Parts: sequence; structure tokens; C-alpha cells
Amino acid sequence: MEYEVRKAEGKLGILIPGLGAVATTLIAGVEAVKKGISQPIGSLTQMGRIRLGKRTEGRHPLIKDFVPLANLEDIVFGGWDVYADNVFEAAMHAKVLEPMLLHAVKPELEALQPMKAVFDKSYAKNLDGTHVKEGAHKMELAEALMEDIRNFKEEHGCDRLVMVWCGSTEKYIEPSAVHQTIEAFEEGLLNNDPAIAPSMIYAYAAVKMGVPFANGAPNLTVDIPAIIELAKEHEIAISGKDFKTGQTLMKTILAPGLHARALGVRGWFSSNILGNRDGYVLDDPDNFKTKEVSKLSVLDEIFKPESNPELYGDMYHKVRINYYPPHGDNKESWDNIDIFGWLGYQMQIKINFLCRDSILAAPLVLDLALFSDLAQRANMSGIQEWLSFYYKSPQTAEGLAPEHDIFKQLMKLQNTLRHMMGEDLITHLGLDYYQELMESL
Amino acid sequence: MEYEVRKAEGKLGILIPGLGAVATTLIAGVEAVKKGISQPIGSLTQMGRIRLGKRTEGRHPLIKDFVPLANLEDIVFGGWDVYADNVFEAAMHAKVLEPMLLHAVKPELEALQPMKAVFDKSYAKNLDGTHVKEGAHKMELAEALMEDIRNFKEEHGCDRLVMVWCGSTEKYIEPSAVHQTIEAFEEGLLNNDPAIAPSMIYAYAAVKMGVPFANGAPNLTVDIPAIIELAKEHEIAISGKDFKTGQTLMKTILAPGLHARALGVRGWFSSNILGNRDGYVLDDPDNFKTKEVSKLSVLDEIFKPESNPELYGDMYHKVRINYYPPHGDNKESWDNIDIFGWLGYQMQIKINFLCRDSILAAPLVLDLALFSDLAQRANMSGIQEWLSFYYKSPQTAEGLAPEHDIFKQLMKLQNTLRHMMGEDLITHLGLDYYQELMESL
Amino acid sequence: MEYEVRKAEGKLGILIPGLGAVATTLIAGVEAVKKGISQPIGSLTQMGRIRLGKRTEGRHPLIKDFVPLANLEDIVFGGWDVYADNVFEAAMHAKVLEPMLLHAVKPELEALQPMKAVFDKSYAKNLDGTHVKEGAHKMELAEALMEDIRNFKEEHGCDRLVMVWCGSTEKYIEPSAVHQTIEAFEEGLLNNDPAIAPSMIYAYAAVKMGVPFANGAPNLTVDIPAIIELAKEHEIAISGKDFKTGQTLMKTILAPGLHARALGVRGWFSSNILGNRDGYVLDDPDNFKTKEVSKLSVLDEIFKPESNPELYGDMYHKVRINYYPPHGDNKESWDNIDIFGWLGYQMQIKINFLCRDSILAAPLVLDLALFSDLAQRANMSGIQEWLSFYYKSPQTAEGLAPEHDIFKQLMKLQNTLRHMMGEDLITHLGLDYYQELMESL
Amino acid sequence: MEYEVRKAEGKLGILIPGLGAVATTLIAGVEAVKKGISQPIGSLTQMGRIRLGKRTEGRHPLIKDFVPLANLEDIVFGGWDVYADNVFEAAMHAKVLEPMLLHAVKPELEALQPMKAVFDKSYAKNLDGTHVKEGAHKMELAEALMEDIRNFKEEHGCDRLVMVWCGSTEKYIEPSAVHQTIEAFEEGLLNNDPAIAPSMIYAYAAVKMGVPFANGAPNLTVDIPAIIELAKEHEIAISGKDFKTGQTLMKTILAPGLHARALGVRGWFSSNILGNRDGYVLDDPDNFKTKEVSKLSVLDEIFKPESNPELYGDMYHKVRINYYPPHGDNKESWDNIDIFGWLGYQMQIKINFLCRDSILAAPLVLDLALFSDLAQRANMSGIQEWLSFYYKSPQTAEGLAPEHDIFKQLMKLQNTLRHMMGEDLITHLGLDYYQELMESL
Repeated sequence: MEYEVRKAEGKLGILIPGLGAVATTLIAGVEAVKKGISQPIGSLTQMGRIRLGKRTEGRHPLIKDFVPLANLEDIVFGGWDVYADNVFEAAMHAKVLEPMLLHAVKPELEALQPMKAVFDKSYAKNLDGTHVKEGAHKMELAEALMEDIRNFKEEHGCDRLVMVWCGSTEKYIEPSAVHQTIEAFEEGLLNNDPAIAPSMIYAYAAVKMGVPFANGAPNLTVDIPAIIELAKEHEIAISGKDFKTGQTLMKTILAPGLHARALGVRGWFSSNILGNRDGYVLDDPDNFKTKEVSKLSVLDEIFKPESNPELYGDMYHKVRINYYPPHGDNKESWDNIDIFGWLGYQMQIKINFLCRDSILAAPLVLDLALFSDLAQRANMSGIQEWLSFYYKSPQTAEGLAPEHDIFKQLMKLQNTLRHMMGEDLITHLGLDYYQELMESL
Repeated sequence: MEYEVRKAEGKLGILIPGLGAVATTLIAGVEAVKKGISQPIGSLTQMGRIRLGKRTEGRHPLIKDFVPLANLEDIVFGGWDVYADNVFEAAMHAKVLEPMLLHAVKPELEALQPMKAVFDKSYAKNLDGTHVKEGAHKMELAEALMEDIRNFKEEHGCDRLVMVWCGSTEKYIEPSAVHQTIEAFEEGLLNNDPAIAPSMIYAYAAVKMGVPFANGAPNLTVDIPAIIELAKEHEIAISGKDFKTGQTLMKTILAPGLHARALGVRGWFSSNILGNRDGYVLDDPDNFKTKEVSKLSVLDEIFKPESNPELYGDMYHKVRINYYPPHGDNKESWDNIDIFGWLGYQMQIKINFLCRDSILAAPLVLDLALFSDLAQRANMSGIQEWLSFYYKSPQTAEGLAPEHDIFKQLMKLQNTLRHMMGEDLITHLGLDYYQELMESL
Repeated sequence: MEYEVRKAEGKLGILIPGLGAVATTLIAGVEAVKKGISQPIGSLTQMGRIRLGKRTEGRHPLIKDFVPLANLEDIVFGGWDVYADNVFEAAMHAKVLEPMLLHAVKPELEALQPMKAVFDKSYAKNLDGTHVKEGAHKMELAEALMEDIRNFKEEHGCDRLVMVWCGSTEKYIEPSAVHQTIEAFEEGLLNNDPAIAPSMIYAYAAVKMGVPFANGAPNLTVDIPAIIELAKEHEIAISGKDFKTGQTLMKTILAPGLHARALGVRGWFSSNILGNRDGYVLDDPDNFKTKEVSKLSVLDEIFKPESNPELYGDMYHKVRINYYPPHGDNKESWDNIDIFGWLGYQMQIKINFLCRDSILAAPLVLDLALFSDLAQRANMSGIQEWLSFYYKSPQTAEGLAPEHDIFKQLMKLQNTLRHMMGEDLITHLGLDYYQELMESL
Repeated sequence: MEYEVRKAEGKLGILIPGLGAVATTLIAGVEAVKKGISQPIGSLTQMGRIRLGKRTEGRHPLIKDFVPLANLEDIVFGGWDVYADNVFEAAMHAKVLEPMLLHAVKPELEALQPMKAVFDKSYAKNLDGTHVKEGAHKMELAEALMEDIRNFKEEHGCDRLVMVWCGSTEKYIEPSAVHQTIEAFEEGLLNNDPAIAPSMIYAYAAVKMGVPFANGAPNLTVDIPAIIELAKEHEIAISGKDFKTGQTLMKTILAPGLHARALGVRGWFSSNILGNRDGYVLDDPDNFKTKEVSKLSVLDEIFKPESNPELYGDMYHKVRINYYPPHGDNKESWDNIDIFGWLGYQMQIKINFLCRDSILAAPLVLDLALFSDLAQRANMSGIQEWLSFYYKSPQTAEGLAPEHDIFKQLMKLQNTLRHMMGEDLITHLGLDYYQELMESL
């Protein structure tokens, strides 16, 4: 496989379904960064470096200086929401960023009016959408979205577009017949099949319009055969699902460490308290189920209890999310981990993470948008497994277990970039340093 | 570089200076495992698996089935201590393992009498050694150790030996002239140079006798040019320093995770409470200094503040160890980490690790003994950087910065084993899965 | 009111419905204390002291030396359970105490066979009782219990009896017509009224037999007009409800402290993880409801939001109990408290209590038994509000708000004892020390 | 003793040595409260209520409506500092309050210029005073302070004055001969005796001028016979020492709760991290010693290990304060408490308090000023033990052990107020409710 990565010329439009806390925090932040009053901390594409060559070469360029990414100056934002508030109003309402910061970019944010959303209350019972599209059937809604996309591209003179889902978690559903083929799916759109979730309609519209799609929620969305097939047909990059922030981020950091040391785990209890709109939606059991499945999956894949029954065979894993208004967007997690070591002696780890939900998620949206655009320019279509790093529940080729260990995910991401640019892959073997040393004696 | 790994035939003697809590926990544990009443949890050599080939091949053998390691049945223990207690008495005194377990292996432990130790009170003011060697000068002490080694090997019919330092942390010293060459060092031994610490005398004796040496404390020991040179001359594997357990283990797990995500760190405060002999020795500021240097180094190397000044340039890192008798060997750490994300917004992580010092350290001794013996049989002499995984402060070739990120250390260890056995190195690139997929369409 | 406290002569029988973790921990403990191999820590009647007179008098006798309590030597235990295991078997199964300790009192525990229980699965869906009484109606069951009581007293030659409910939490019910009068209640017994819970049948039997009753669970039990009336008629001491241990204990310690300092509270989130039978029963929402009501009530009464709306008017209080098998009886609670101080500035308190459920509860059973017996001998019949100290949800006279502040509860308990024995009540005024001082100048 | 409490007419001047974080937070706050833009949370005199009479009477007036306190409108602030910054500048520098809030009261704060301080570098090595008084001897400095007081009173037309020490902790000293009598002390002032600390010079000046004095730091200050004698002679109210905030506040809340339940304590480890000027001063071991003595004393008095050796005889108590700049004024404490219950079974409590040092201290300064003024108007001169509630290390009459239990302290404070105003003292006996009930049947 040879890559010829097209340059990032012209404007990149980032289209976002769901202009809530995460999206407004991203947009306000990018504007603040462009004005030089803030920094894009937490964004690998903006702040991260990558080692190239041997340790002794001392090559550690910024990623954005190594691979051709769209420049922040060339980004244009757009999006849909079930509320008609402009992005400034929505950001004030979200209470994530200080009013002082928001006022500094007020004109840019006020100019951003959401387009009417595709909404289905049965998928988010705790929400009441008022700013929504109407249509005879779901295909008509999909076409309305495509019309939005077309107009947006033209109006803003965009060279390329990407779409990142930042909407709420939808209720839990399992893939069914309507999701299996493009034909069945399109028929479902026409028949208003209830198993077609709003997020899938966005994904369908995006792929049909040649727009890469990244899914930040635990919904199925692009993780169904119909959309995967469509993406291959149109040669579009897709990825998902569920931004990996907060507690799950910590889990996929810590669990590989315990596993590396062959320490056993008897129980892992995870509690979360948060008080934002996301917390409110997840207070509904149907929506929590979707999130729970996403959150529970990570440990099994990392610990592989079937291969290590003495260490992880009896692990009890429980995740709770509690809506707790006093905290607002300041999500807090508390984990109790019961581990055991030498001769079975027990120990405990407690982690208390006082985090901020949208602050952790916003840079992931930026990175996914830029990397999806990069993949598209490198002709890497279909599922982008190398973006697993950003997801709680990474989408992979059928039959391939997702990798949850964040350090393997990082290695995969970095080696993909190196491979793309024709640099040597890194294995950390490093015996050569010592060989040379010995030869030189 | 081609490896021809000799098989692990005959008995392996593990010689341990310092038969305190860690060593007795190891020895009692190995005996219990041999009797089938317990399991060697936390030992990578005994419980860990390694992936070989492509993900879809499903090859994940136990490490001990993949590389030729000494069998637990073939291990014989021996050691030195400043107290005359046999291993059973010392283990009872250490209060790490339950009396019931210790009684189950009482005969084996009682049979183990420590040899008289080389001791110098100026290196451990809080200890009072009574079971110690006397000699006109340090060279005479070194020769007495060599005599011990010779006798032990003969007496127990050992094929091979390894030595692992499990003694207390010695007071802080900087390398000086006497440590620079073999000649200066040997002259220093004859002149009773105060800069030659007891642990160096053990290391000298080991290397001269052809015995690989691993250093579990933060002392210089084998990390001086004289011993490195000697190890090359005699083609002996050496490694160090300071077993990575508890808080530092957590640090080298968590810090790479924060760095991976380009999250900034303003402060990291680490407090420890422990009540064992180790805690008592570290209550002396001179000895704590040695440990502090070892503990503080890890973050700088992982975060590289010089390359990432906006993220880590102002990080304040403080480590405290408090002697707290009520906890005994149950070391507890508490970390407060002040991080910042998108636009500089602050978050906090608190980690409370209720660990057990010796339970975490014991399997490291076993692994280091077995892997040092393996390296020796593979003709890998000198500094074993691939064993960095086990150390707080890994020893490397001069001019090469130590790698502290536990996941890079693990990758290095695993790829070294793969390399040794002629297997493909793993890069986690994995694009081929998708290529094949696309070709098959 | 004049007290003439009868002496504690002869044997005291302690009858316990529910011989599970708490009861077996109590019984094994009392036997161990009697053998001199352990101490009754946590029991105010056995270990606590009381100050008498002025501070300068230095009078601080043990409570058991100050008021006439039954001696541990004179206690005989009996009880009912839905499982036929004897107390040794039940204690081994509960896994609270070490096998070694239980074996030291094995004969005493094995001798204790539970009587058949009154059980109604609709009140505890997660339990399956097999060792249960049968009867045509609930009055017949009550009579069978009375027969048990009569036989027990005779068989063991008891002078006096007390009953303490240590059974599971029953499902939530509200008081209804059948609970309002003795007549309605007795009719309900005959008619098998579903609103009469098993614990009420025990309470009815006890009071009818002249046996004081203390209620350790959050069930209504003796907190209904019918039983209160019956207790007055028979001049019997009753009290309840729900042993105050663990998280609620901490809450009624901490909340008065915050209130004392006029610190505001915005939110209090309480999470619990436990893995014993109690946790399993509470996994059923109906049973959890009963516990939740009991647990939620404490803060409102202490903070009085209606009097202090600026400080506590918007407080959000949430309690979660999670069944988490790896912990067994080692209940662990985690509280996050969002407080605010001067000018509304926010602060947080996190409390992590690694407690042991039955270890905390067992001494409360002992104290309640001994103090109920004392009250009875002092002719203090009806509701014993001075025992509020032991309860999550103290029973009071109608129209009187329960006092939850543990320090006011303690003051009430101590001043009641002082009053009973004719000592001066203590007010902590203490100005006299300074008056005398000034006069002496 | 009969009280005739004079009314609070005219202006009250509050004079503060040390216009640092605490004092500026207080002053800015009072100004903000006077403007109606904030509330005096945490101040018992402003927000607290007191129960009067029987529970059923429902009388719970605000304390400020019950006893005659100075009104916030009638307060005038003044003070001394070693830096010349006005209060606005000092408050901005302290970074406790948001700039927006400080700007809202900028004119009031800017008008407040500190008077030159009495400073002695040997008592606070880490400070460099530049705005200091000079004098031939300490008596001259005392006279200069008296002149300041006289001028302030006249200039602002104050009816009454109080002084509250808010300066840094001075180095540790023990009382010596010079502190024993007024004569020796005054001779020492003339001779520049090094054992006379700056805070004592302020206290001497205050008492000589008829100004009540409250001591917010752990220094001896007014807790020496010379000043106590002087206070009696001049009939002046004095009290001390060391504002009870943060960790010690939590300790005197929690420890009485554990003691109430006869739970044993094996160890209590307390760690603090803070980054303000106070933390910097306490980084010097001499100054920390003064604070440590104050902090360590509280547990012994509450647990009384000599009376309860089985429960508290072996308690190990350790307190650490760590200077940690990233936190600024946001002091954070972490406590680990090793307790044991029934049969000696061990449990642990961990408390993590994310507090704000000056936010907790400011309202204490206000309360102490207002209550000291009240005491003075009630002719209660000498040591005010009833203000123990506010102090880590309460000053008492010689031979009288200080009371540390915050709930006894509160009872003492409240009953003193009730006593002062001729209300019944409260004992929480409450048996009468039940007697009446029974009589009414």
C-alpha cells in the first residue's frame, strides 16, 4: 500500500450534529486559539509531538508539522441542533466556559445559527426538541440534510467537509435486518423504519455526500453493515464510537498497566456523578444501556479473562452514572479497584477524577475532524481503526476484536502516521544501541 | 545479532543480599507455589502471556512456554543478612504473610540461614547490624563474599547463579573518582575508600564470580563505570535500579496516559505512608535522598518539559515518604495531580493506592532473576536495558536517556523476547487487515 | 419523675429475629469476650465512660460501673432464622469473623439452633426461607412466637428478656388503617392482612409477653400506633429504627459540624458498595426504598433548610447502594459533599469509609439490649427517645421531630443516665470556673 | 453572676495585625455584604440560629437578633502589615477572591492603607518586612502601636475597638521568666528581650488601651501570665489561639463522633498541601513547630488515652504540612484514620478536604471580633473560654484542660449566650415530652 497524501488546501468545513456543551466548547475554543488568547491543550494534532528515527537522532516534530493537516485558520464550523439557540447562547447555557472567555469571541459564536435537526423523541425521551425538520419519511429528512450540506459547502466556499456526531446518546438498540444492506436501509428510510436512529440518517447523508464521518456517541450510527458498505462504495473514511474521556480514559490507561504486571483483578466498581444535559439524558435507563454497553466492554478486551482465568476470570465490573445537578458539566468519577498480587494478597486502588466533561471531549472532536480529513486525502477509506485512540468502543473490521489498551492504540496511531509519511516504524527494541556500544569497545 | 539461547538445565541458585520483608516474601511464596497451595500472581515470567504473529492468528503463549526459563523446581535460594534470624523467623517478624501460610512452608524456610553480611552503618544509620563480616579492608570482605558464592554453588550443586539486591536503601552518594575505573575501584577496596558502599562490594564479588546482578534499591551499586566495565570484561548481565512498585508504578502507568492525550500537568504531589523496616530506614534524610532522586526522575523523562513547555514546563513535583507504624508493610500512597486541558481549564486526579510493599516487589525479584539468567544464557552481557520495565530508575548506556513509560518498557521487553526467539516484532500498525479486506471486496 | 432502678439480677435472655451476619458477629463476640480472648470495642455499655460533676472533680466512671446493667456473664442468646444453620455455621457462612476466632467459641455457637422463623417472601423477594413457621393466619404465627418465648425463658431460667430485630430490611410500606389501633391490628392478624409485616408479628408477640423490643432495620415494625399503644398498655420499652452504622453514622457526625459553623451545603452524594446478604436484599428496589427513606431523612432534620434557606435551601441529596460481591461484608462508602463558605465560595469534602458492616452493628445490638433492659427496670415504658443515638431514623412521640445530630443524641443519652442516677445534668456552661478564679484574686 | 449587657451603640473599630489573605478576604467580604452583593456564609453571628426553650416552642431566632451585636454597618477596619500594599492590592495579590468581586469594592479597599508593622525577622525567617516600625526598644514599639490605636479611634470616631491577630505563625518558643509577670514583661520590653514576640507587643498595646484581643495564630501571644494578669487588671476580654479551620476543624468534628461510639483509633495521619504565604512561612521548621504543637494537641484531649487505654493508648498521630505552590490558597488536606471496632477488627476512614484557607478563616475573624466586643460589653473580662469553638488550641484558666470537642464547645457557646440573656440552659434531656404524654393518656 502506497500513500500519496493530498495537501490540505482550501477551507475545511466541520459539520456537527448536536451543538451542545461539547461542540460549543470546541468552537469557542478554536476561535479563542485563533485570536491567540488561549491554547488547544489536549489536542494531539495541535500540541502533540512524534518521535522519528532512533532515540539518538533527537527528532520529535509536532504532529502538525509532520503530516499535512488542515490549519485552524482554514476551518469553518456548522451544525444542527434541536434548540434554536445560536452557539453563543448555547455555550452560555452550557456553563462550561467562563462568560469572560465567551464574550471575547461573541461575534463569531453569535454568527453560528444551528440548522434544524433531525430528531426522534423515542430515541431520547428526556429531550424536547423544538427546532426540528419535518418530512413525510426518513428519506426526505436525509435529503433535507444533504441539501443543508450542499448549501453549507457552497455558502462557505469549502474545499472539503467532515462530520462529527456530538449529539446525545440515543436509546439502546441492536442491529437488525434493516441495518444489514444498503438496499434494506434505503427501503427503511422510505418506510420510516423505527430501527433507523436519527444519527444513522446523518451518517447516511454524510457518506452519500462524500463527507467522512466520526461518531462521538455510543450509538450504532456508522457501525452497521449498510453504512460500512456505503462508505466503501463511496470511498469515505468512517470511525467510531463514543469519545473516550473521563473515567473510561482512566480505565484504558490503568488496566493495561495492571495487566502488564500480571496483577489480578477481582472487582472494578465505577461511579460517576454529573449534572449536565448528557447526565440528564443518561438518567433514562434506555439511554444509559447504550452507554453502559460501551463502558463495560473495555476491561474484558484488555484483561482477556478467557486467556487469563486465574487473574481475571472472576472479575466483577459495574458502572454507575448518577445525575447530580450541583456538579453541572464538572463530571466526577470514583473508581474502586480490587486487585490481588503475589500469592493472592489483596490490594485496593481508588481513583477520584474531578474532570470536566466537555473540556476533555472538545479536543477529541478537533483531532477526529482533522485526522478524518487526512485519511480521506490519503485515500484511506472505510473504517479507520487507527483512530481507536479516541474511542471508548472502537469500530473495527468484522471479526477483529477492538483494541482498548490506549498505549497500543497510540502506537497504532503513531506508526500509521509514520507509515503514511514513509518513516521507519518504531518497535522500542533498541538493542542496536548496545551492539554498537559493544562493537566500539 | 544472532542469539543462540542455551537451555536452562540444572539448578539455578538465587543469591540475595538482604533477607528482609521482600526476600522472605519471595522465598516463602516460591515454596508455597511449588507445593501447589498458592499462585505466583504478579510475576510476568510465571503468569504472563505474549502475543505472537498477527492478531488473527490467536497465538498467545505463556512467556515461560515461549522462552527457555529456569523452572521453579530448579531454584535454590541463599542470601546474606545483618540479622542472624533464619528465613522463617525473618518472615514472621516482617508480618507480610499470614502465619498460617508461613507454617505451611516452615521446614523449607527454617533451613535457610543467612550468611554473614557486609555492612557499614554509615550507609544505613537507622540499622544495627549484628550478623556481619569483619575484615581488614573491603577487598577482604569482597573475597569473603566470593568464597560464600563458591561454597554455595558447590554445596547446592548449582549450574548457574544470579544475584538480586534486596537490601535497604543506602545513603545518597554521587559517583566519584574511585568509581570510574576497575583499577581505581580495586585500589579503593584495598584502601577502605568510604565511597565504596556495601552493595558495590556485593556487585563486585558477583561479577568477578560470573554471576549476573540485578539491583532492587536506588543505590548506585552496578551503575558506576568500574562495575559496567567489569561486567563487559567478564561478559556478565547487569541491571538496575530500584524495584518499580506502588506509587512509582502507578506514576509510570498514568503519566504516559496523560502525555498521550496532550493534557498539561501543573503539579503532582505524592505522599506515602508505610511502617516497615524500609520506612524506618527512609526516615533518615540521607537515605531518603537516594530514594527521592530515584522517585523524582520518572516524570521528567515521560513528560519531556523541554520539548513541551506549554504542557509541562511549570510542573511542580514533590514526593514525601512518611514513616507510619500502624500500617506496617501495607504501604499506602496518595497522589494529587493537577492537570489542565482544553483552553487551560483545570482538573484534578486523586489516586489512593492501598498496596502491600513486599507483595508487589517479590515477583519482580523472581522475574529479574529468571530474565537475568536468560540474558546470560543468550550471551547478552552488560546493561540489560530491556529490563527497564522492572525499575524506577532504569540503567542505560551512557548518553542514552532512560525510558520510564511502562508501556514502552513493556514493548521493549516483549519485542526483545520475540527478537530473541526469531519472531516478528510487533508495531501495532495493522493496516494489512484492512487492505486484505478491501482487496477481497 | 422519680426513678427507682431495679437491680439486674438473674439471667437476661436476648432474643434475636434474624441470625445472620450481625447477630452471629454479636454472639460470637460476646462469647469471645467472656473467654477473655477479645474486647467489646464499639460498645458504649462495655467500654464507654461518662463524666460526672464538674470538670475539676475528675469523675469519669465506666458507664457499666455507673448504671446497673446486666453482666455479660448473665446473658443467654436465642433467636429465629429462615435458614436452619446453627450459629457456628451461619457465622462461617457470613465470613465476617476469621475462622480461627470462630473455632475458639465453636461449642457455644453450635449449641445455638435457630427457632423456625415467621417469613413472608413478599416482604423480601431476594430471600428464600426454608426454615419457617406455618399457620392458618398471622395470629397463629404470633402465638407460636409467644410459645417460643415462653419456652425459651423457662428452658434457660431467664429472669428477663429483650428482643432486638436483626433481620433483613423489609419492603417499603406506609402505615395504613390496620396499623392504627390494637383492635384493627389484631383483626388484621386474624385476617392475614398483607400490610402486617413479619417484623410486626415479632413485635406484637414480644410486647404481649412483656419483652422490650428494639428495631435494627428501617421497617415500620414498632413505629405504628397499634404497637405503641400496646407498649404503653403493657408498660414495655420500645425503640427504633435502623442501626446507625457506616455512612449514616458519618453523616450525623459531619453534618452537625458543618451546621455548627454555618457552612452551606449544595449537594451531598452518597454511594455505597457492599456484597453481603443485606446488600443482596437491598438490590431489590422495594427493599431499597425502605432503606432510602431512612437514609435520606437525616440531613433535613440536621440542616433545617426551612429555617436556613440561604445555607441549605437548595441542597441536593442522593443515596445509592450498590451490590458489589467482591467486598462481602466489608461495606465501603464514598461521599462527595459540595459545601460553600464566606461569600458563597465552593469547597468539597470527600469521605471514603472502608468499614465492616456487622462489626459496626454488633455492639449496637448489645447496647440496645442492655439499655432496653435497664429502661424496663427503671419503669421507663413506651418509646425510648434517649436511645436515638443508635438509630438512623429515631422513633419519637407523635408530633416531635426526631433528633439526628449524634452529639445531641449523646448528650440526651448521657443526661438521661445522669438523671436516672440522681447526678447533675451537664450543660458545658462552665462560667463558674472563671468566677471562682476572679473572686480568688 | 449577673449580666447587664450594654447595647452596641456607635462604631466598632476592628484592628488587625497582618493584612494578608485572611484579613483582606474578611474586609472585602464585609464590604460586599454591605453592598448586598454577597452573603456572610460561615459566620455564626450573621447566619446562625439558636434554639430557645423547649423543642415544641419552635423558637429559633438568628443569633444576631438574640444578643446585642455590633451591626456590620457600624464596623470600621484598620490594621498593620509588613508590606505597604493597600488592601485592594493585597487582596489581588492573595488570589483568594475573584478580581470581579474585588473590583466591585475597590474604592473601599484602596482607602485602607496598612499602618507600619512591628516586625522581627527572627520570628518569621521566610518573610521580608519592608513596611516596619523602628524604635530603640520594644517598649517604644508598643507605645507607637498605642499611638496608632489612639489615632485610629479618634480619626474614625469609634465608640469601641477590638483587635484580632491575623499575622503569620511565629517561630516556636516556650514561656520563660520574662512572660511570668507584668513587671518582668515590661522590663523585657525595655531591654529588647528576644523572647518577646511581635504578637505580644500588639497584645500588650491592645490591653493597655482597653481593647479586647483575639489571637488567630498558634503563637503564645496572650497566653502568658503577664498578659492574662494585665487583662484582668484592665478588665479586658482576651482569647486564643489559632483559628480552627480545615483539617483541624474536621478532626474536632470527627474525633468526638468516633469517641462517642467507643471506636478505637490506632493511627491518624494528616497531610496538608497549600501554596499561599502561610504555607511558605510554615515551610520553615521553627514556624511549623508552633503550628504542629497546636495541631497535635486536639486528639489527645478528645480521646483521653489515659482513661481509655484499650481504645486510644497506642494511637499514632502525625501531621504534615507541605508547601505546594500549584494550589495557592486552596488548601487541601488528606487524612487516613485507622480505627478498630468490635473484637478489634480494623477499618479505615479517608477524608479529602478541598478547602479554601482564607474563606474558612475570614468569618471566624468577624465572629471573634463581634463576640469579643459583646463579652466586653457584658463585663466578661479575662480569658473567654466560651470562644473555644473558634480555636485549634483554646486558652483556658490555668489547671483547666481545654475542651476540643467542637460540639461541647458549641454547647458551651450557646449556653453562655442563653445564660447571658436569661434563657434556660439546654440539656437535651427531654423526658418531659414523654411524661406529659403519658399523663395525658
